[in-house]
Parts: sequence; structure tokens; C-alpha cells
Amino acid sequence: MNLASDNCGPAHPEVLTAMTDANHGYAPSYGDDAAMNEVRERIRTLFDAPKAEVFLVATGTAANSLALATMVEPWQTVFCTPLAHINTDECNAPEFYTGGAKLTLVGEDDKMTPQALADAIGSLPVGDVHVPQPGALALTQVTERGRVYDLAELSALTGVARAHGMGCYMDGARLANALAALGCSPAEMTQAAGIDMVSLGGTKNGCVGVEAVILFDPSPAWEFALRRKRAAQLFSKHRYLSAQMLAYLKDDLWLRSARTANERAARLADGLLTVPGAELAAQMQANMIFVRLPRAVHQRLHAGGAVYGLSEGPLDTGDADQPLLARLVCDWSIPEEDIDRFIALARG
Amino acid sequence: MNLASDNCGPAHPEVLTAMTDANHGYAPSYGDDAAMNEVRERIRTLFDAPKAEVFLVATGTAANSLALATMVEPWQTVFCTPLAHINTDECNAPEFYTGGAKLTLVGEDDKMTPQALADAIGSLPVGDVHVPQPGALALTQVTERGRVYDLAELSALTGVARAHGMGCYMDGARLANALAALGCSPAEMTQAAGIDMVSLGGTKNGCVGVEAVILFDPSPAWEFALRRKRAAQLFSKHRYLSAQMLAYLKDDLWLRSARTANERAARLADGLLTVPGAELAAQMQANMIFVRLPRAVHQRLHAGGAVYGLSEGPLDTGDADQPLLARLVCDWSIPEEDIDRFIALARG
Amino acid sequence: MNLASDNCGPAHPEVLTAMTDANHGYAPSYGDDAAMNEVRERIRTLFDAPKAEVFLVATGTAANSLALATMVEPWQTVFCTPLAHINTDECNAPEFYTGGAKLTLVGEDDKMTPQALADAIGSLPVGDVHVPQPGALALTQVTERGRVYDLAELSALTGVARAHGMGCYMDGARLANALAALGCSPAEMTQAAGIDMVSLGGTKNGCVGVEAVILFDPSPAWEFALRRKRAAQLFSKHRYLSAQMLAYLKDDLWLRSARTANERAARLADGLLTVPGAELAAQMQANMIFVRLPRAVHQRLHAGGAVYGLSEGPLDTGDADQPLLARLVCDWSIPEEDIDRFIALARG
Amino acid sequence: MNLASDNCGPAHPEVLTAMTDANHGYAPSYGDDAAMNEVRERIRTLFDAPKAEVFLVATGTAANSLALATMVEPWQTVFCTPLAHINTDECNAPEFYTGGAKLTLVGEDDKMTPQALADAIGSLPVGDVHVPQPGALALTQVTERGRVYDLAELSALTGVARAHGMGCYMDGARLANALAALGCSPAEMTQAAGIDMVSLGGTKNGCVGVEAVILFDPSPAWEFALRRKRAAQLFSKHRYLSAQMLAYLKDDLWLRSARTANERAARLADGLLTVPGAELAAQMQANMIFVRLPRAVHQRLHAGGAVYGLSEGPLDTGDADQPLLARLVCDWSIPEEDIDRFIALARG
Repeated sequence: MNLASDNCGPAHPEVLTAMTDANHGYAPSYGDDAAMNEVRERIRTLFDAPKAEVFLVATGTAANSLALATMVEPWQTVFCTPLAHINTDECNAPEFYTGGAKLTLVGEDDKMTPQALADAIGSLPVGDVHVPQPGALALTQVTERGRVYDLAELSALTGVARAHGMGCYMDGARLANALAALGCSPAEMTQAAGIDMVSLGGTKNGCVGVEAVILFDPSPAWEFALRRKRAAQLFSKHRYLSAQMLAYLKDDLWLRSARTANERAARLADGLLTVPGAELAAQMQANMIFVRLPRAVHQRLHAGGAVYGLSEGPLDTGDADQPLLARLVCDWSIPEEDIDRFIALARG
Repeated sequence: MNLASDNCGPAHPEVLTAMTDANHGYAPSYGDDAAMNEVRERIRTLFDAPKAEVFLVATGTAANSLALATMVEPWQTVFCTPLAHINTDECNAPEFYTGGAKLTLVGEDDKMTPQALADAIGSLPVGDVHVPQPGALALTQVTERGRVYDLAELSALTGVARAHGMGCYMDGARLANALAALGCSPAEMTQAAGIDMVSLGGTKNGCVGVEAVILFDPSPAWEFALRRKRAAQLFSKHRYLSAQMLAYLKDDLWLRSARTANERAARLADGLLTVPGAELAAQMQANMIFVRLPRAVHQRLHAGGAVYGLSEGPLDTGDADQPLLARLVCDWSIPEEDIDRFIALARG
Repeated sequence: MNLASDNCGPAHPEVLTAMTDANHGYAPSYGDDAAMNEVRERIRTLFDAPKAEVFLVATGTAANSLALATMVEPWQTVFCTPLAHINTDECNAPEFYTGGAKLTLVGEDDKMTPQALADAIGSLPVGDVHVPQPGALALTQVTERGRVYDLAELSALTGVARAHGMGCYMDGARLANALAALGCSPAEMTQAAGIDMVSLGGTKNGCVGVEAVILFDPSPAWEFALRRKRAAQLFSKHRYLSAQMLAYLKDDLWLRSARTANERAARLADGLLTVPGAELAAQMQANMIFVRLPRAVHQRLHAGGAVYGLSEGPLDTGDADQPLLARLVCDWSIPEEDIDRFIALARG
Repeated sequence: MNLASDNCGPAHPEVLTAMTDANHGYAPSYGDDAAMNEVRERIRTLFDAPKAEVFLVATGTAANSLALATMVEPWQTVFCTPLAHINTDECNAPEFYTGGAKLTLVGEDDKMTPQALADAIGSLPVGDVHVPQPGALALTQVTERGRVYDLAELSALTGVARAHGMGCYMDGARLANALAALGCSPAEMTQAAGIDMVSLGGTKNGCVGVEAVILFDPSPAWEFALRRKRAAQLFSKHRYLSAQMLAYLKDDLWLRSARTANERAARLADGLLTVPGAELAAQMQANMIFVRLPRAVHQRLHAGGAVYGLSEGPLDTGDADQPLLARLVCDWSIPEEDIDRFIALARG
């Protein structure tokens, strides 16, 4: 019963098979492989973006950092939430890649409102050489608390950013989960909603290690290519990244996997709400659950072999009734039985 | 007949099998997988370095840049040759990772002498705040021209560097090929020869994409770990890097593959020397050949389907007798028949 | 009636005279001038720090950025308030100089509490490679809202930082004003209160352009020297910086000037409190006043020629009774008559 | 008899007087002072460049680094000579300011030829993502060996750079000395010769500490302004920089001072050529002399109190006849008597 993270699970067998199938003979290196052309065309079609440029990298942090570095200057600031992955979990990688740009934190948690964004931008006087300059908006979809911006929310936020001349980036480490949740098309949730660059995460949803960065406006493509190389993120044996991404997109594997993960999480959330004292800390919309459970429940779960992240205090001491916050993440591979066993354990 | 680069060939089937075997169930992410412990122990044993720390990354440029950034300060300079990969082929990645350190070029080609190194260091007055400060020595083994430093050369160079308080890094993108050429132990060619950090390349010699960085002195290990994370080079599904490296080191696969590649190159060099007008531009010691061949020979080879890098002029025009420099690289997978066919074509 | 900033006023005539006196014959460049030795000894005595190292630079941003860059690594974070000059007014200079470190904002305004600091540090799990690492505490004394940390507050804050292994920096752009306000010794307000590095501002308090950075622990002095040079902040004709600082410290000119400025501000604050509708937005403790005045009062002041910064709305439209926040800064040179004229205008 | 450097001498009295004259009342800070408008207009007129933008900074390294950072991207390289100040004497400041760009060294000494430049650019294949990209040409005028590029040489070099899409920067730390040597107009030696940005050095030629950076194309002016601020090079009490530069340009003080310095150097060179064993190491064209003198001559000069830089061996031991290379720099203030006394001492 591993709910620690969707990066602890295995890759989908179809992905490994595709890598093995790609493993014969010689292929041009550094992204000139024929499979990369297929990847590019497939993504252009899926996102209804015939002119988009596409780059593959191997980590989500690389995708975020390269995209932001291409969008902002070192004297600018990126508007994001306090809980944004780029703020809390990348050990200053965005600051490194951008050459020292700043992150300006908007809102209190994993989501921001258009008004809060407008206020934050407004606090930086236009044309004042002393203050960090407005650079870009960065949204995470699915958010770090497992919530999903709907299309109206996205458009409202990107509208504020664009009105101030800023570009908009979407951290799509869990893009497929968000699409599965909203039921909209990739184009609707990205370019049509005002997004300029988006990462299409593969690693958390069934790949070995691959993320696509999509530039709807291709004009900074050569800069992005140089930044990727200079950041040591250009793979010589690129064919194995291409093979993963092709398999991931083939026959909707990405959406199938995401739907499965979301369904498992919904099943788990439903079950947990029947546990006495359980309380959701954030609306469950995709494949992550933030739930407060009494310490005694956590103790039972741990004793029963469940693995997941916990905060707000030590597990072993203190009031058995005191609730502690858990993060439970369902990946594409988690069996229904594990979900049901987890619920049964929690109910005691 | 692909001799363009050892990164155009496939991965060894044993490596892909190991990745597939690793693809089940849950595993701790970000390098906490059990297989990484095995990798660490295996490398400590192989390099006779029980205290060494080991990190896996996915590209050679990442290995070089992270090691150098850990060794030098931004106001220092790295001594390397003009042909060093870090100087010519990484689009300023070392400058990026080090925060703006300099490369000081020593010698005229792919190797430097102790005297040239001493002179270069001597040109920077000690304690002068205006000049770049001596930072580290970086050697490539096998060099970019296919040559191999012998143990005495290595010790002499690292001796000069250490006498000036500098650390010594070895870019071992083709470390196995060098070991196969010298017939010495990994410990002899690295720590015993004065090397502080070395990269153990896997990608060019049968892996999908993995390089190990070995720190013989473990004291900067936490810094290295933070730099790797901040550089977006820490893989969440790290188990697949570990699996590659374990398979690569198992049953001496790395050395077997390197020996094969070196033997193919020797066979090719021997054959080419029988071609009228052929002349080796650098001593052939591992798996790369730099050879000048008459333009007419190149035209025959290209017409026959041979793929490789060429410099010193256009192929299609000019004097048929004029020699052009070719770089021919044999990877572990190239069949003997391809070598023989190449030679036959060259001989006309 | 210029209350816009203490950097709009002139330098003290004694400073200009000292520069002119220094302007004869040859002097060693780049800080090797004899006057710098005097500066160093004078500051060591004043701060009761016989081993301290002292460096002169020409801007407050340079002082802050060089000190912080010497104290923190690029993967660390600096704890400061949201209103800290390093956060709001330096256009990402700290991020530039540190190579991409982060600022973590503590509290809501210009001061932080020990509890808020401890909470912020506590939110970064120790030993977690994904999160920005604790780097340093940065306090501004006088704060950006004109308040002064007392000695107990300073010790409590630096105690929290030191308990987590962090160094403590004091941005002393208005250090003399704070000393004048507290009536304590320089040593008590810095090293004895747990400060590791402090800037001693000259520019805002009667110099042309000079700030001293004092390192109570001299061990990083050579690193600081190299960083200063690499940042293009090492002056060739350094004698003119030395001359300014010597004159500034001679016969307590720095404290005399600060006392004058503080007294003028106190006189102004007293007068403003008699203006109907006036309200101090922050406790007036040094030479800056943050006061809300009705828009009609501001209109009278502007019409009368007063120059100062204003926020919270346009001056010319809206409700005449609506209060707008003004920042009023008294420099050492402002005449009492200007203060009294300002008050008279405000009272109408 | 101080010939160590033109930054060891005093400032011209007219400059100090101008600073003192500027020292009254309030003035807008950060470059908004009225005097800066005068500076801008004066330089536009002098350089026949009505649209040029002008920025003042306080050190030559700041001028060079900010200009280059504005001209090149971090993945590009700057072409300069091995002896260029930016390569040898700025402790990696250009690498710092550019965010990690490279310097590619062209030629063997202080000057490069168009052919050498073309070859160096040609060694970087166009469109190859692995190699540092061509960024800018940087020339020093007067060179670091005291030579002066004539107008034809400048145009030929900038022509090569522009043909490859690169901008051209001139490090004019001794621009006035070069103008005095060539007898041409500022416009002829800069914009008309293909220069895009130039620094107009004041510090070495009679100022306290000020350099102007001139952007003939004003389009990157806002970027330059932000970079200057972010680099902590924007002075709050900017009026004192403006006052220096105004005085420096008034009544041709800059050219008068440079002519004096050049004449002193010519007188010294003429005298030294009468010293047995003396040999110029570089053509004397401005205010610096590189001359080899027998060790015995140096010993006499040192004993007599002469101060200057020496290389190629220790002064006190070895063959009395062996020549050692000296760098002798005449500043605007050196008296003719000192020159004559120096020559007399050298002749013995």
C-alpha cells in the first residue's frame, strides 16, 4: 500500500517495451532521431498547435526551470503560489536556471485568485528600476494540493498576466490527471486558456523519466535548445526519451493511466470519509488526497504497512485523537485491493 | 557502417533487460532505492575506495559540470586542453554550473604536458585579487583525439596541480576504454594517480543514459547532492539509473564492451594503414581513429553508406588526392563485418 | 523642504574637504592606500573587534549583496522581512550576487519576531535535498519603516538563527541613526548581539558614496576580497573611499550627523501629531516618519514645495479627508526652519 | 617617480572642484540629477550620436562587464585577445555579469588580426547546439601593451564581427589617450568604425572614479539600466559621478590630460632608447611603455626610488646584463622632471 508519491511506482510495461523495441541499430543522437519527429507531430496534433515546438527532458524540475528561464530575465520575478513546486521542492533550481530571478508568492496555499495576482503585480511600480520586474505567471495543474483550476479560473489568471505583458507557464507534471479531471481537450486547458508554455509530465504517470516542454509560440525555440544543452539536459541517446513519449501518447495511454489513478483516488477518498474523525484538507479532484486523520488511525495504517507522507507532528506520541495531515497519492499502478485494504485498516 | 559516435549505437541488451527487471512494484525515489546501495558498494570495491561517495546522473555534461562546480569557486579557473569536451562541446555548461568560472587552455591539442600546466598556473600570480585563481585540473581519459594518458603522465600532471593546491578531475566518458587500453585497475588510473573526482561513463559504452560521479574524498558529498538537485539532475525514478549501472558493472560488462570497441578500432586502423594516402592524425589507443584520407576515398565511403564525421573541407569538390580528416568511432556493437566492409571500400 | 530620502541631500563639507586633501601625489591603488589602514584600525577600535576585517564599497546594495553572497550558498535561503530593502529595492541584486539563493520572507512588515523566524526555519525540513537550505538571517537596522530593533530583540533573533547554524547579517545603511536612537555602543548593537557581518552606511548620512562591510570573523576575508573584485566593486583610486570613511568617523561625525537627523525627525513627528487627521503608521524611532495625512494636507504641502514619497492613491483626486501614507526622511542637512515650515504648511 | 599605473595618480583639481561645487542642497538621486542630462547631451555631441544612451559607473570593470552582459547571451562567447583586461585582470567579472559566457582568445598578444578573428569564429560551426555561440567582439583601445588600433584596423575587425552577426564593444579605459594618439574624432574611432558600445574611461585620466558607457543604439538602454541596478552599480548620490564627468569633458580636459600623459611617455621612451641594452617590447603609441632593460638598470632605478611593474624574473639575483620587462605608465600628472630623472637614473 504505497501512497507516498506517483514517482515511487513502476513505469507502464508498454513504455519499457517501447524502449526495448527502440534498442537496435544506430540512430542519430541529441534529438535528431526519427522518433522525435513523430513525438513532435503527435503533440502538435493533440494540442491543436501545428506550429508548436516540443522538447524532451528527463525531470520535471528541468522542464520547469528551462521554460521559466526562457520566459523571464534575471531581473524579473515569477508569480506563483507559496506551495508551488518551483518554490518549495526544487532547491532553488528556478533561481539557478534563470540566472537569479525571483519568485513572488501570491495567495496563501496552492491556488491564487486573479485579484491576488493583480495586487501582487500592482505592488511593483511600472518602470521603477529598483524593483524586481514582472516576468511570468507560473501555475501548477494539478496543484500541489491535488486541486484543479477550471478553464474559467485559468483564463482569468492568464488574462491578468497578459494584461501586464507577462507570459504564462503551466507546470504540468500531472497534466494528464488534470485533463482526466476536467474532461476537456489539451488545447482547451493550455493554449486556449492563455498558456504560452506547458510541461507535459510523463514520469509520474507511467514513464521511466521523460517530460515534454511545449512552446506554443515557436520563436524562442533555438534559445530553449541552447539552454537545454547548456544545462546538460540534452540526451545523446535521445531515442529512449522519444520512445517513452511515443508509447505514452499512443492509444491514449497517458489519459488511460491518469483516469485510473484518479479513480483510485476517488475510491480512496470516498472510503476515508467513512472513517470517524477524517476530514479532507483540500478538495479531491485528481489523484492526490490531503486528509486529516486521528493519530490512532495513522498508527494503525503504519503498523499495517501503508507508506505515505505525514505532517503536523510525530506519529508515536501525543493524543490519539489529534488529527495529523496525510498526503496520499495514487499512481496508475495501484491495485483496487490496496485501496480497499487501506480503507479497511483506517476504519479499524 | 556507422562510425559517427559511440552515442549513436544501441544499449547493450543486458542493460535493457535490467531496466525491465527493475520495473515492478514501488521503490523509494530520488536515489534512495536499494539498487543504488548496490551500485555504491560495487564501485567502492572496483575502485578500491571504501569511503568514496557515488552519484548517478544521465549525461556526461552533467557529470563534468557538477564535479567541476563542486571543485572550484566562481572566481577560479579550470585548466584543460583546447580540445577538451568541456571547452568545445558543452555550450558553456561548465561556466553555467560553476557560476562563471573560467577555463584556461593548456597545450595545443588534446593532451597537456606537466611543463605547460606549470607555466599556465605560473602565469597567475599567487594572491593577486585581479586574476582568476587556480581552481582545478581537468583531464579527459580517453582524450578527445582518442589517445590515452599513461599512469606516469597522469601522476606527473596531478602532481603539478596538487603542488598548487588544486583538485584533479577526470572526465571518464570513455573510462572503460582507457582501462581496457592500459590494462591497469580502476584504482591505479584514478585515485592512485592523483585524481579526486572521476566520472565513470556508461552512455557511450552500452547504457541508455547513465554516468557515475565518484568522489574519493566524501566530504563534499552533501554539497554535490544539493548541486545535483538544484541542477534538475536528480531523478525521481532513480531505480532505472541504478539498474543500468548495476548491469553495466556486472560480470565486467563495461570492460568487455570497451575491449570489443577497442579491438574493432584496432582492426580498422590496421586496415586503413593499407589504404594508399592514409595517415593517422593521432596515435590510435582506444576506440577512436583520427585519420586523413584522400577525398576520393571519402567519396567512395560515403557512396557506400559509411557514416562518420569529416572536417577540413567539402567532400564533393576539389582535388581527389587532397586528404581530409575523419573521426571514426567504434562502439561496442559494431560488427567485424562492418569494419571489414569499410576497409574494403576505402581500399577501392 | 526635501524629505524624499537621505540620499538626496549633500555630503558633509568635512567629507569633501577630506577628499580634496587626499588629492595629491601618488597612492597605491585597489585598497592598498595607507588611509585604508587607518580606516581598518579605527573601525576595529570603534567596534571593539581587533580581529575584524573591513572592506569599503560604494553602494549599500553592493555591501548587502557581497556580505550575503559570502555568507550563503546558492542553494540556501536568506530569512528577511517582506519590506527588507534586499527584497524590495535591489532588483534581484542579492539573487545575482549569491548565484541564485532565495529570500524567505518572515513576518508581515519591517520587523520579524523570533517565533516567526523559528517557524519559517522549521518549515524547511533538515537534511531534505529538495528544499532550499537555511542560509542566513538578514536584519535591517534602522528598519525600512524607521523602527529600531532593541538589543534584546536583536539577541533573540540572532539566537534563533545561530541555533540553526546560520550566520547573521545586519544591513546598516542607517547604522548611525540606530546607534543614536539606542544610545548603545557599536559593539553592543552588532557583535555582542550576535551579528557576524554588518554594513556601516556612510552614503545616506553625509558621505559621497561609501559603505564599510565589517567581518567580525575574518576567516572569509579573502573570499570577500575576491567577490568584491569579481563584482567590479574594487576601486582603483580607493584612496577617495578611505578619505570619506576616515572623515566620517573622525570626531564622531557619523554620530553627530545621525543625531541631528534623528532630532529633526522627532521635531517633525511632534509637529505632525498636532495636524488634524494625522496618524503615525509606524513608531518613529530614528530619522524616518511614516505618517498618514489627509489628502488635503498633502495637496497643501505639495503646493508649498515640499518633496517626499507618497503612496495609497493619487494626490489630485478623491476625498480630501482620505488619508494617504507619506514617507518623510530627514537627512543630516535639513534645517530646522524647513521642518517648521513643513509643519506649518501641514497645519494649514 | 611613480610609473606603476595611471590609477595611482591624483584626480585633476578641476574634477575635485566640480564635486565640491556640486555639494549643496538636494538633488534627485539614482541618475535623475540635472547634471546627468548635461553629461548625456555633451557626450552625444562629442560622439556625433544624437540618439546614444549614456550611463555612468564607477569602475572600468563595471563598464566592461555591463556592456558585454548586455551584448551577449550566457551561451555565447566574446572574442578578445589573450592579454585583454577582461581576460587577465577582472577575476572573472565578465563571466559573472554575463551569467557564464565564455571568452575566446584570438591572437597571441594585445592585438588581433581580421584573419585570426575570422578563423576563430569559423571554428564554431553555425547552428551547432553543442558549441559556444558567437557573441561579441571586444577590443581594448589603447591596448594592454600600449598600442593603438588605427581606424582601418578597427573597421576591418568590426567588419568581420558584423558579418557574423556580432556586436562590437570597445574597452575605452584609455579612450582619450587613443584619441590623442590618432588625432581623430571620437565618432570616427567608435561608431563610424563599427563600434556598438564603448566605455569612456575617466578614472585613469584625471577623475576620482567614473566611466561612461555609451550605447550608440539606444534600444537596449532599459536592459542596461536594470543590469546596472541589479549589479549594485547604480549610485544613489549620482550627482558626484555626473560632476566628475562634466568637469572631465569641459574645455577638453580629458584630451588635454591624455595629450600630456602621451607626451610624457614619448619623452620617456625617447630617453630610454639611449640607455645601453634598452629595447622596446611593443610600439609606444600612447601613455604606456613596455621596455626591456638590463637587470642592473632596474636595480639602479629601484634604488633611486622609481616605482613601476616588472616581470620576467627577480630583480635582485642573476645576471646584471639580463633584460627584464618593465611596464611604465605615465599619468596626466607626472612632472617632466620625474621623467628626466628616471632617464638619468637609467643611463647611470
